[in-house]
Amino acid sequence: MNRIYDRVALIGLGLIASSMAHAIRRAGLAGEIVGTARSEETRETVRELGFCDKVVDSATQAVEGADLVVLAVPVGVMDEIAREIGPHLAQGTTVTDVGSVKRSVIDAVAPHIPEGVHFIPGHPLAGTEHSGPRSGFATLFDNRWCILLPGETSDPDALARLRAFWEGLGANVDEMDVDHHDLVLAVTSHCPHLIAYTMVGVADDLRRVTDSEVIKYSAAGFRDFTRIAASDPTMWRDVFLNNREATLEILGRFTEELFALQRAIRTGDGTLLFDYFTRTRAIRRGIIEAGQDTDAPDFGRGKTK
Amino acid sequence: MNRIYDRVALIGLGLIASSMAHAIRRAGLAGEIVGTARSEETRETVRELGFCDKVVDSATQAVEGADLVVLAVPVGVMDEIAREIGPHLAQGTTVTDVGSVKRSVIDAVAPHIPEGVHFIPGHPLAGTEHSGPRSGFATLFDNRWCILLPGETSDPDALARLRAFWEGLGANVDEMDVDHHDLVLAVTSHCPHLIAYTMVGVADDLRRVTDSEVIKYSAAGFRDFTRIAASDPTMWRDVFLNNREATLEILGRFTEELFALQRAIRTGDGTLLFDYFTRTRAIRRGIIEAGQDTDAPDFGRGKTK
Ligand SMILES: NC(=O)c1ccc[n+]([C@@H]2O[C@H](COP(=O)([O-])OP(=O)(O)OC[C@H]3O[C@@H](n4cnc5c(N)ncnc54)[C@H](OP(=O)(O)O)[C@@H]3O)[C@@H](O)[C@H]2O)c1
Ligand SMILES: NC(=O)c1ccc[n+]([C@@H]2O[C@H](COP(=O)([O-])OP(=O)(O)OC[C@H]3O[C@@H](n4cnc5c(N)ncnc54)[C@H](OP(=O)(O)O)[C@@H]3O)[C@@H](O)[C@H]2O)c1
Repeated sequence: MNRIYDRVALIGLGLIASSMAHAIRRAGLAGEIVGTARSEETRETVRELGFCDKVVDSATQAVEGADLVVLAVPVGVMDEIAREIGPHLAQGTTVTDVGSVKRSVIDAVAPHIPEGVHFIPGHPLAGTEHSGPRSGFATLFDNRWCILLPGETSDPDALARLRAFWEGLGANVDEMDVDHHDLVLAVTSHCPHLIAYTMVGVADDLRRVTDSEVIKYSAAGFRDFTRIAASDPTMWRDVFLNNREATLEILGRFTEELFALQRAIRTGDGTLLFDYFTRTRAIRRGIIEAGQDTDAPDFGRGKTK
Repeated sequence: MNRIYDRVALIGLGLIASSMAHAIRRAGLAGEIVGTARSEETRETVRELGFCDKVVDSATQAVEGADLVVLAVPVGVMDEIAREIGPHLAQGTTVTDVGSVKRSVIDAVAPHIPEGVHFIPGHPLAGTEHSGPRSGFATLFDNRWCILLPGETSDPDALARLRAFWEGLGANVDEMDVDHHDLVLAVTSHCPHLIAYTMVGVADDLRRVTDSEVIKYSAAGFRDFTRIAASDPTMWRDVFLNNREATLEILGRFTEELFALQRAIRTGDGTLLFDYFTRTRAIRRGIIEAGQDTDAPDFGRGKTK
């Protein structure tokens, strides 16, 4: 018996929630999965796909009788959902979220959580460029990290259960300080996304190079950027608006360094360029050794045609 | 009989040349493959690997009796090699190169090519983050583009043969104007590489986020950048020093746009962010429809552990 919760309520049924549902079933972690999403269209799709035992029309209905509630909606919507479900949460329930930003989500959600309900924020560091209920798959979290951000007063039993749950989903669990999380993620995720969006935007804008040229000749490096820049606009708008400070700090560092490299190109300083490009290889090696990426050339992309 | 050349000389035996050798053999495009590289170590490795019929100690020896000579060395070395082999090239030989920048390579090589030898510059838009003679594989060019940049006086027969040769290697062949090539590549390859190097450098530099955190949590987007930033430092130094103007122009556009997005984050302009992020998705779709990348989530990366 791997069951950890009797009834898990998934609020939002996109990439993350649907992957959680598939992985919950794979490991038998819950007695029952109840889900809800904003649109009737998504709810209907999920009924067809069948990865929830029950799909209901509102968040308040979904949390009824649930011992784990997962907020899996864009960061900007967390406040509204928490406000809505707050009064309906039963004593002893655990509430968690999967939002990509933590300080602002905690500020938005915590005030609506009643005494006796355990709010433990979380963030699985796993995702793809696809979104929506059809994009989920059971192995998304395997060997990825899930960060939990318990407060000092968090209930140890509730925390241990949530940790076991994420481990059951395939993830390695870490705990982290809230503001440190937002800074680390600005570096490893938020800024890379903004930069990729920007570069793809520049390519799209440039009148002297046509879109069809950009598309045809993308294999030389650019196509990796377009994958990242194909991610969901709502999710990413909310991330940047809600992790403003850390994102702007890292972008400031980034432009500073970029200007130094630009200057080296302008002045023909090959040594500076060579040394800079040599240093960055070590990080790649570390990522491969840590099992967080494949060493196969081009990520082992299959032949595309 | 698919033989197009009797003897192909590969100058430089890294990723591109070794992949060409494997693909030449796969299709039977040459009677004989002769190769040379700078270091005895590489030459010895290639003798072991056996993808050349003959490995010789110098470029002048390699071009002897060759009807196709391929310069597959870093862009900054083209001048030196051309100067060396120029006097030893037989009438009717075709000389091509695979350098990632074209204007400066043409300026470096063309003056050393004798009358009656056909110099037709080229650039296969295919590569990986790995380098050296062990990194090559026969399918590297399959369904990728190879750009040829014949001059107005190029011999039509020599051009037709070189085109057939690249098609035999698996590539689709296009012709392009030299300066336009350098601009297009600045967009689709050179600037993305510089930006990726920069972002990885920032992550490595930041005192408040450790390298081990960056490595552990890279799956959220950053690891795609580290792949690009693991590419060969010599090759990329030479690319930037030799495509200075176009690279700096595109970087100028890039920082302009990045500042606009930074400003939107600072002022909380969610509409601007959302619209920007929506526009860039169309380009990704085009790339997938053109068969230049896979639509599988995360490039269909295999499980990494
Ligand atoms: N994608 C990633 O790579 C990733 C990784 C880690 C964490 N996250 C975080 O996970 C969360 C969900 O992301 P996702 O990728 O799963 O997004 P997604 O695929 O776009 O799904 C979002 C879901 O939220 C629902 N929703 C949106 N607004 C709502 C509202 N006002 N009320 C109720 N439901 C609403 C949507 O319903 P409809 O379908 O009806 O619109 C949809 O089911 C976000 O906070 C994101 O930051 C994402
Ligand atoms: N990698 C890509 O993604 C890619 C894609 C398209 C085009 N290109 C272009 O293709 C060319 C080769 O790139 P690559 O990736 O194949 O590089 P690589 O794997 O690093 O190999 C470079 C080769 O050039 C040889 N070489 C270097 N300096 C030399 C010298 N002074 N004399 C003789 N040989 C010398 C090296 O010999 P040693 O091994 O003895 O040092 C090595 O065999 C470059 O111009 C590059 O811009 C690369």
